[in-house]
Amino acid sequence: MTIEISRRIRLAAKSEERQKTRVKIGDVEIGGRKIAVIAGPCSVESREQLMEAAREVKAARASMLRGGAFKPRTLPYSFQGLGEEGLKILADAREEYGLPIVTEVMSPENVGLVERYADVLQIGARNIQNYPLLKRVGKAGKPVLLKRGLASTIEEWLSAAEYVLDGGNEDVILCERGIRAYQKLTRFTLDITAVPLLKEVSHLPVVVDPSHGTGHRSLVAPMARAAVAAGADGLLIEVHPMPEEAKSDGAQSLTPEGFNSLMRGLSPIAEAMGRTL
Amino acid sequence: MTIEISRRIRLAAKSEERQKTRVKIGDVEIGGRKIAVIAGPCSVESREQLMEAAREVKAARASMLRGGAFKPRTLPYSFQGLGEEGLKILADAREEYGLPIVTEVMSPENVGLVERYADVLQIGARNIQNYPLLKRVGKAGKPVLLKRGLASTIEEWLSAAEYVLDGGNEDVILCERGIRAYQKLTRFTLDITAVPLLKEVSHLPVVVDPSHGTGHRSLVAPMARAAVAAGADGLLIEVHPMPEEAKSDGAQSLTPEGFNSLMRGLSPIAEAMGRTL
Amino acid sequence: MTIEISRRIRLAAKSEERQKTRVKIGDVEIGGRKIAVIAGPCSVESREQLMEAAREVKAARASMLRGGAFKPRTLPYSFQGLGEEGLKILADAREEYGLPIVTEVMSPENVGLVERYADVLQIGARNIQNYPLLKRVGKAGKPVLLKRGLASTIEEWLSAAEYVLDGGNEDVILCERGIRAYQKLTRFTLDITAVPLLKEVSHLPVVVDPSHGTGHRSLVAPMARAAVAAGADGLLIEVHPMPEEAKSDGAQSLTPEGFNSLMRGLSPIAEAMGRTL
Amino acid sequence: MTIEISRRIRLAAKSEERQKTRVKIGDVEIGGRKIAVIAGPCSVESREQLMEAAREVKAARASMLRGGAFKPRTLPYSFQGLGEEGLKILADAREEYGLPIVTEVMSPENVGLVERYADVLQIGARNIQNYPLLKRVGKAGKPVLLKRGLASTIEEWLSAAEYVLDGGNEDVILCERGIRAYQKLTRFTLDITAVPLLKEVSHLPVVVDPSHGTGHRSLVAPMARAAVAAGADGLLIEVHPMPEEAKSDGAQSLTPEGFNSLMRGLSPIAEAMGRTL
Repeated sequence: MTIEISRRIRLAAKSEERQKTRVKIGDVEIGGRKIAVIAGPCSVESREQLMEAAREVKAARASMLRGGAFKPRTLPYSFQGLGEEGLKILADAREEYGLPIVTEVMSPENVGLVERYADVLQIGARNIQNYPLLKRVGKAGKPVLLKRGLASTIEEWLSAAEYVLDGGNEDVILCERGIRAYQKLTRFTLDITAVPLLKEVSHLPVVVDPSHGTGHRSLVAPMARAAVAAGADGLLIEVHPMPEEAKSDGAQSLTPEGFNSLMRGLSPIAEAMGRTL
Repeated sequence: MTIEISRRIRLAAKSEERQKTRVKIGDVEIGGRKIAVIAGPCSVESREQLMEAAREVKAARASMLRGGAFKPRTLPYSFQGLGEEGLKILADAREEYGLPIVTEVMSPENVGLVERYADVLQIGARNIQNYPLLKRVGKAGKPVLLKRGLASTIEEWLSAAEYVLDGGNEDVILCERGIRAYQKLTRFTLDITAVPLLKEVSHLPVVVDPSHGTGHRSLVAPMARAAVAAGADGLLIEVHPMPEEAKSDGAQSLTPEGFNSLMRGLSPIAEAMGRTL
Repeated sequence: MTIEISRRIRLAAKSEERQKTRVKIGDVEIGGRKIAVIAGPCSVESREQLMEAAREVKAARASMLRGGAFKPRTLPYSFQGLGEEGLKILADAREEYGLPIVTEVMSPENVGLVERYADVLQIGARNIQNYPLLKRVGKAGKPVLLKRGLASTIEEWLSAAEYVLDGGNEDVILCERGIRAYQKLTRFTLDITAVPLLKEVSHLPVVVDPSHGTGHRSLVAPMARAAVAAGADGLLIEVHPMPEEAKSDGAQSLTPEGFNSLMRGLSPIAEAMGRTL
Repeated sequence: MTIEISRRIRLAAKSEERQKTRVKIGDVEIGGRKIAVIAGPCSVESREQLMEAAREVKAARASMLRGGAFKPRTLPYSFQGLGEEGLKILADAREEYGLPIVTEVMSPENVGLVERYADVLQIGARNIQNYPLLKRVGKAGKPVLLKRGLASTIEEWLSAAEYVLDGGNEDVILCERGIRAYQKLTRFTLDITAVPLLKEVSHLPVVVDPSHGTGHRSLVAPMARAAVAAGADGLLIEVHPMPEEAKSDGAQSLTPEGFNSLMRGLSPIAEAMGRTL
């Protein structure tokens, strides 16, 4: 009755020797007792915006700061991110608020640049099977947050992790962010079942992104609670000082007040799970 | 930024007058502060099996008893249920253990028969757009538990509820039970996001069936917790005295011990949500 | 390298004895050399509308006439069909134009009524797992056109056919009508691959409905050609004298001119396949 | 009643000025009257294997030769392709048999290398939203064959084409290769409707890959016919001298005899469409 995955997935699979991996990022640990909340705006839009966001999420007790400097966008005409300037702003925010930085890297040749600034390298959903990129971050010196692809099966997702682990980088965090089904009212279908399923077949820590997963601000807090109740090790939450002016993902970004409220509602759920926030 | 549904969905939609419906079944209420746990075997297989299941789920504080007498099965050669004999056994179990009965009705002409025995009429996922059946239970004197179809959008599901409500039956309970996406390791993809989404757009109570939704015993308890943390009003859990001998759905049925353990783990989550179990 | 289906599907599966079933409806044969084109409006709306449609599709060499008298509609407030009056109009059109009639039956208790008028009983996509209905048409004296469910796998669809065949009715026609995937610009995703796949694993004839499958008038003719080139035995095409005034499915209905043009374009494809139109 | 796409898709959309693009590769034209058949093995495995494949597909009148030198594979332990050595073998086959070469490029830094050998740069399904790669091939001097992603909507696919066009490369060929739905018996769900739909909204030529789209040798020929009957400008067909020994995709590869037979069956369909093969 146990759930079985392909035996060809060696390094990402749970085994007698590898029961549970904890990824350490400075003082933060993902996969331990404390739920790691990674919060911040979708994109770094300006120094003011990011510093304000960092201050607010820090005050609400987030563990880490997120923000995109290189943005994968459906069309070439959309805002593509501030690039290295964005990375510098992120690094300054870390300096100021003591929050480790998670940011996306989109191509092998930029891994060197991004890891000079970031604490965690995010691989986006659209790059889940970008093998040259996966191989490259397998050689990087920073942990990798690996988002599930829009249509990845659990085994394909773990196979992508296998590329990173096989490259020698043992610090992989899996991030469920919603799959593409036939939904109309939400942006994606957040697959919360992936959390206990991954806990059963893999030793890697699992976090959930209810912001992209739902696409609606009002659904983020209840789905964050669901994720923690299902056993998630952390959350990725979009927070913007002024969501209605965001250059991307405004509809799913929480205000600082909304984020505060999410954290308050999450706290008793974390406790009920024997964890801390 | 609010989520909007078609204005043609009148009776199932939330409105100023209808904010929240509570469905009463004897002493049980679905949609109130207490989480309603409906437990029991997939099929009524024998008097012994059902009585044992009823005794066990009662001891573990379930609110209601479930069990199928008429079973929709993919192939005509599979066990089709005990029919009226199964209904009688269910009614006897109610007598013995004081648990209201939820059981499925599959055709308009059987509604009269089933409602003589059952306390709640279940409409299965495969009948979500069986309009003659929906119209008929709209005229029934018992509440209706309406399972989401395998490929129903939220609006189609609410439109099915509209048929029942339009018939004059105001006691409709929505039940999320997993949708068909591209998953391979689970039976369906349980759409927990449907819970807060329905709470935003409809006044009807919402319960979740993590047994069918996942198809794996080991995933039932974490997904039950996720459902409650997301705001569900109740749960539908398959429990069988001896799952390995079940005539249907054995792989996803909990043992009585497993159900006991699920209830213990659920209790602090319910409390964290300001609810009772 | 052969495609294998469950051995529990006995009667619908191809076997040494059953290589190819031809269903005869008066002078029409489905599964033979001639491609059967079943055309007509979604709903019977009035005597004038249906007679006009029948005259036009007859002139364009359709083999059979379709039209709904009992309509499954998402909401109870939509036009539900003319009921028995619609059946009478259909029978009169048959009298007038010599075209056999295909019409939908939605509930077991209406099978007797519908088969008094119709030549082929259509089971709609939403009733693919309505087992009491499948059992009932298994006892009917007329052929059954079984539409694939919105989310049916090939094996589930054949299992539904198994119910009809197991009831003693050997005249089952399978109809691909599009599945629900994540498409946005079309109504459904027409699964043309189902045609050669079914031809490999089953002996039953297969027809395709590109009208529902696409939802757009402009896509109907190319997809009709694709279906025939893939080996389909027939087509189901929505034709309405004035599509813009149709009570249902206007956007996907062809005008009589459009249908004429479809037939002209189809003719060389049928010939290329060694078939006639 | 026309199908409308986002107005932000400017260059890939059909307009008064751009009705139909023909991509020229040496003597071959994609988007003209002649159907372009691109055939060859999934991977270049050895000089002998590729030369034999080239000879056979040439004899059967293929227009171009395909073969992968850099292979995206789910797991790092699978055969990853021969790299530059594979490109050289491809170039030698072009020399020998006069067939232009289509081969995949997986990362921006390899575009320079691949375009030194290849006539058409293939972007695989897994890289449909690999924006740095799309931008880079937008600057390349060779046409781009852009495969649809496993879960791409039509608009996302055209948006990916927009990146290439916006970079200045006007020679983009769209390739439908199957989407991920809930199918079990086939590898993917080949979306033939994409062909007429793209013809309605875009000026770019469209080819279809029934080998990946179905995953079964026996389904390739009927789906190739369906693609052409729906209006496709070309086909991508996997052919291997000894499919049972192929290092990848053996189950869906045709033998040379199978390919010959496919071409013979396709010829009357092409004619019926007013095209040549």
